[in-house]
Amino acid sequence: MFAHPVRSLCFNRCAVGRIANFSSVAAMASNKFRLPDKYQGLEKNVWVEFIQLALENKPVNLGQGFPDFAAPDYVTGSLKDVVTGPDVLLNQYTRGFGHPRLIAALSKLYSGFVGRNINGATEIIVTVGAYEALFCSIMGHVNSGDEVIVIEPFFDCYEPMIRLAGGVPRFIPLRPKRKEGVVHASDFVLDEAELESMFNEKTKAIIVNTPHNPLGKVFTADELQTIANLCQKYNCLAIMDEVYEHMVFEGQKHIRMATLPGMWDRTITIGSAGKTFSVTGWKLGWAYGPAELIRNLQVAHQNAIYTCCTPIQDAVARAFELEMSRLSSPECYFNSISVELQTKRDFMVKFLKEAGMVPVIPEGGYFMLANWEPLAPKLLEHLKDEPDPELDYKLVKWMSKHHKLQGIPPSAFYCADHKNLGEKYIRFCFIKEDENLEKAAEILKHLKLTLDSRL
Amino acid sequence: MFAHPVRSLCFNRCAVGRIANFSSVAAMASNKFRLPDKYQGLEKNVWVEFIQLALENKPVNLGQGFPDFAAPDYVTGSLKDVVTGPDVLLNQYTRGFGHPRLIAALSKLYSGFVGRNINGATEIIVTVGAYEALFCSIMGHVNSGDEVIVIEPFFDCYEPMIRLAGGVPRFIPLRPKRKEGVVHASDFVLDEAELESMFNEKTKAIIVNTPHNPLGKVFTADELQTIANLCQKYNCLAIMDEVYEHMVFEGQKHIRMATLPGMWDRTITIGSAGKTFSVTGWKLGWAYGPAELIRNLQVAHQNAIYTCCTPIQDAVARAFELEMSRLSSPECYFNSISVELQTKRDFMVKFLKEAGMVPVIPEGGYFMLANWEPLAPKLLEHLKDEPDPELDYKLVKWMSKHHKLQGIPPSAFYCADHKNLGEKYIRFCFIKEDENLEKAAEILKHLKLTLDSRL
Ligand SMILES: Cc1ncc(COP(=O)(O)O)c(C=O)c1O
Ligand SMILES: Cc1ncc(COP(=O)(O)O)c(C=O)c1O
Repeated sequence: MFAHPVRSLCFNRCAVGRIANFSSVAAMASNKFRLPDKYQGLEKNVWVEFIQLALENKPVNLGQGFPDFAAPDYVTGSLKDVVTGPDVLLNQYTRGFGHPRLIAALSKLYSGFVGRNINGATEIIVTVGAYEALFCSIMGHVNSGDEVIVIEPFFDCYEPMIRLAGGVPRFIPLRPKRKEGVVHASDFVLDEAELESMFNEKTKAIIVNTPHNPLGKVFTADELQTIANLCQKYNCLAIMDEVYEHMVFEGQKHIRMATLPGMWDRTITIGSAGKTFSVTGWKLGWAYGPAELIRNLQVAHQNAIYTCCTPIQDAVARAFELEMSRLSSPECYFNSISVELQTKRDFMVKFLKEAGMVPVIPEGGYFMLANWEPLAPKLLEHLKDEPDPELDYKLVKWMSKHHKLQGIPPSAFYCADHKNLGEKYIRFCFIKEDENLEKAAEILKHLKLTLDSRL
Repeated sequence: MFAHPVRSLCFNRCAVGRIANFSSVAAMASNKFRLPDKYQGLEKNVWVEFIQLALENKPVNLGQGFPDFAAPDYVTGSLKDVVTGPDVLLNQYTRGFGHPRLIAALSKLYSGFVGRNINGATEIIVTVGAYEALFCSIMGHVNSGDEVIVIEPFFDCYEPMIRLAGGVPRFIPLRPKRKEGVVHASDFVLDEAELESMFNEKTKAIIVNTPHNPLGKVFTADELQTIANLCQKYNCLAIMDEVYEHMVFEGQKHIRMATLPGMWDRTITIGSAGKTFSVTGWKLGWAYGPAELIRNLQVAHQNAIYTCCTPIQDAVARAFELEMSRLSSPECYFNSISVELQTKRDFMVKFLKEAGMVPVIPEGGYFMLANWEPLAPKLLEHLKDEPDPELDYKLVKWMSKHHKLQGIPPSAFYCADHKNLGEKYIRFCFIKEDENLEKAAEILKHLKLTLDSRL
């Protein structure tokens, strides 16, 4: 995909040295600095591609998952207080595995959530976003040849991280139970027999994301128990990506795998300050779990990053301290954000339907898949000049360029063999200003009218 | 070193499944989640150990390399402006390979420094500190079996990163030219023949740190040219760790390898906002070089971190914009910090001599090695209860515990076979409040008196 001929190297300066002949020097030069084997095939990244597209087209951007409105005042205010406050050491290096004040806040918060005493010194690690927590969990556990089960659609970095670690991803899709009628994220389920068939003695871990991106599925107690049983039966880890833990809609409850009987000892749970406090740009995350597992993450972390940004950690600690004092109040951001998001979700469901698509109604998180098959007969002819092989890539790029609305193609969240399962959807993010959601609604309405009038 | 028996796993819950017999299940369980092979032997980290020690003993801490005084007002002020300013998107995700405003600042700054037009889009990457830039440079280039030449003493993460990438570090020490008289960092030199003997067709890169931690050596044009010639002769990369680029003392000049003839195309240069602006806790760094090489760093970066903290990047961009407007003024922090540091260096040289040690006088950076051999005859008996094998580890721990002054043992910066070369030194950091340097002076004076009076 990416050739790396180091074209401009000056061959004529290479004295022959120990190397036998000129042609081999030249051959070597052109290949010597190419990407190492461990990264071959891992060059593509959906975010790099679609952020570039957004920079070029300046669309209404419902692509990447971040709020386009202000984070809570007191969160940004904490950071201001930290950097300009009297403790000048808060701008200097802190403890590598997590700043003491943040570790204290996290251990208090999650001790409450999981109903056991979490030891901050050994059972928590702070990372550069949930992204680095995933990296450390995978690199810190996956040995060459180990298998890791990945549920599709999946947050895209799982696959390359597993491959980088020398592991083998085994993919299993969430499949829709029903073909017709209103579709809810809960209609997407794992087939139990199919799931068990993925496990074997090489299985090191399964990665589960709940609330789920992009489906918005909140895994039920039963679903988690099924996975837990298999983890125990086959002695493997559950790597729980719970970055949307506080974004669950009415009638739903986020259940933590780590609280299921027998699961604490084999579960790594990952969270994100960026997602929790609507400051995705702060890139701070964490993982918690038993000391024996977290120790492996620490080794990966200290050999990649060593320590995270101190003022950001201190500010997040302060934000958690405030929220912990009002956990059950509607003011608590963990509660208010879900209420706010639910209104946005409902609005998006409405305008996607009006635009002739079939939305998959999410129960949590801040993404929604919309099935655009009903529009396909009229849409496809417009997409034929788009060079990508996948239909959803074609659609997203065409819409960004010609209609100034951008989503993300869900086939990016399926393995090579299953991309067809994602192609009929487009992903939209709804943690956006109402104004921008309204613009998106207008664009889609206009698109529908144009398509209808043309035929 | 670290055993990982997942002691608390519930074997009795493991149904036998496909696995043949119970004893193999048990054996597997106890080992299954141990650290992967790629990290075996990479568990130790000198910072983790000595930060813990400092937390326990609360010494005057001249150990880790960070200022204990306030960063420049306008630097912390920029961060405050960014987070509380009108552009709310500055708290959200930015471009993965570097925030546009920071990329623009870096490309302008370094285009000036290296005398060529650096393309920010392809020739720069922003990272989580210089640490992650080192990780990406090494992981993004070192293939299994590649050799990387490391100059001793070395910043400790080079070795485990090379091993993690599957490479083989080849170590060559800087050796003191003179045995007696005043010792300057420039007295520590590489033997040219020894250096050339390290290169062969498997050599992928050499890592050079200038200004040097811990010696304070600023590599001369001649020394860099010798290395450059070998890089070209053997077709390999120069990975330049230049995090102390702005800290050079009177009469010295920092020379960038990338400016030597023919070297741009094979040089990756690494910098650090933490070091440059005295905000080590911000953990922001970068690498620049030809697009073909930086591309490999990008692939490593997007599979570990994906993107760095946006507000920190924007604030650092603003700080650079200010400094670029006054580069040649004495007010420019790049100039004022060196003046400030030089006074601190001179004071430390004086008190180390008075304490009976032989300081190696640095030309740049903010560390100093002190040879404590002259004190050894009287000191050693006090160290005999310290369990570490290396004398400098014994000394550092004993001083932290019993005299409340902490340094860092330089043998941590030598490979297993060469630790003896570091043992007779102790490293002190002098980017500290005068008050704390004075406390250190008092402690050492007292120590000397005690030793003298006892015999
Ligand atoms: C499911 C999931 N996991 C992890 C992440 C990464 O989170 P962070 O920004 O904290 O690295 C994201 C970001 O979109 C996500 O959706
Ligand atoms: C030589 C050298 N390189 C790299 C680093 C890491 O820098 P950063 O804090 O920007 O990751 C340090 C920190 O002490 C250093 O001394």
